[in-house]
Amino acid sequence: MSHDIDAAPVGTPPSRRATIRRASERGHYDRDTLHAIVDAAWLCHVAFTDTRGHDESGEPFAVCLPTACWRIGEALYIHGSNGSPMMRRLASGVNACVTVTHLDGLVLARSAFSHSMNYRSVVAYGRFTVVPDADKPAALDAFMARLLPGREHEARPADDSELKATLVLSMPLEEASAKVRNWGPRDKDQDGDHPAWAGVLPLATTRLAPVPDERSRATGQPLPPSVRAWLDADPGPAPFSS
Amino acid sequence: MSHDIDAAPVGTPPSRRATIRRASERGHYDRDTLHAIVDAAWLCHVAFTDTRGHDESGEPFAVCLPTACWRIGEALYIHGSNGSPMMRRLASGVNACVTVTHLDGLVLARSAFSHSMNYRSVVAYGRFTVVPDADKPAALDAFMARLLPGREHEARPADDSELKATLVLSMPLEEASAKVRNWGPRDKDQDGDHPAWAGVLPLATTRLAPVPDERSRATGQPLPPSVRAWLDADPGPAPFSS
Repeated sequence: MSHDIDAAPVGTPPSRRATIRRASERGHYDRDTLHAIVDAAWLCHVAFTDTRGHDESGEPFAVCLPTACWRIGEALYIHGSNGSPMMRRLASGVNACVTVTHLDGLVLARSAFSHSMNYRSVVAYGRFTVVPDADKPAALDAFMARLLPGREHEARPADDSELKATLVLSMPLEEASAKVRNWGPRDKDQDGDHPAWAGVLPLATTRLAPVPDERSRATGQPLPPSVRAWLDADPGPAPFSS
Repeated sequence: MSHDIDAAPVGTPPSRRATIRRASERGHYDRDTLHAIVDAAWLCHVAFTDTRGHDESGEPFAVCLPTACWRIGEALYIHGSNGSPMMRRLASGVNACVTVTHLDGLVLARSAFSHSMNYRSVVAYGRFTVVPDADKPAALDAFMARLLPGREHEARPADDSELKATLVLSMPLEEASAKVRNWGPRDKDQDGDHPAWAGVLPLATTRLAPVPDERSRATGQPLPPSVRAWLDADPGPAPFSS
């Protein structure tokens, strides 16, 4: 993910609204970058327009909610209860915007103005469609495997009534762009002599020691293969080039 | 933030659209909870409706973008370039939705269906207004102090041309709700004998060793008070009650 800030964006914008306009040197449109950012996330923010629940004139307003997500091939998946207003609204085929963001560091420059953040983000526009009943078990298995590889072999799979209560939606990752900032501060030349220390304060998502529930603790149940592999596979912080 | 799952939500919903409907036992409407979740974040997701850049009929679509945020009193602030399409759109007073989310852990239940995540989130509806020029320096100082306490005394403050190039917007945190899940798996009774290990895999945002930029490294510049205090003040993982 190292990136030359003077280089042109990688790949081609798929549409006008998915074109990066601000800080376009941070833009990426290639599949590898998009997929890596989505695959590093357990959740996304889904935005869509609504009018219900608004006290005024029926002017549309945007709703933005966090939800778990996973990728299969070129599509992003979410799931939820059949009764969820968000899921029902998205299942109706309204325009949606899905955003995935990782904050990788605070960037301290010599001037307040040049402070920044290192991050990786993906913004995808599109419409969700309902995953048919026949494809639901495989899609939900892929979610388990994405949440925690191997967990799909340990947990009791969903039964018919649970599958029936669950809506699975997918959206193509076609109209999407990524933005990556992964370098140090870029002060203006005239600030070089200002005495403030400058650099990056990196942030990382750390995997802490698993906490068993009451029954697993009481029986002294050993950690399963999925959890042991998860602890071993901690990817550490995202790299950056100062 | 410990929370009895059988308790009613804390506080009163401020509006119909800001009422938590799904998993309402996770809902909070009190100022302390809202403020703590916002204050623990460096960035939010801002959603708003737009029609520009859309290839079809002019149907409104939601845009959802990550941006830095900070709180002063009962308002949430964001900033950006005068030339940013998002900032200009929000400055025009359209409806906005601001969402802040912290992912605190993966919740492994015995059944796939009961898997969950621990998280803290805030969703706020409202309209941004432009912070007047006279109030911008104080608002941006508060941002510096929020990004890294003490940094506002180290960095060169913004000069007139930088202030002019920067738009600062604020939105009241009135029509807002929080959602918190911070407990272990809740399996159905009949899954108690399924042999899968169950518990929580906690996640935490960790502060890694600061990386000086080229000039600070070359001169062997010591870490400033702001950064030393930041490293000492690492809050560690959010607590939860299994």
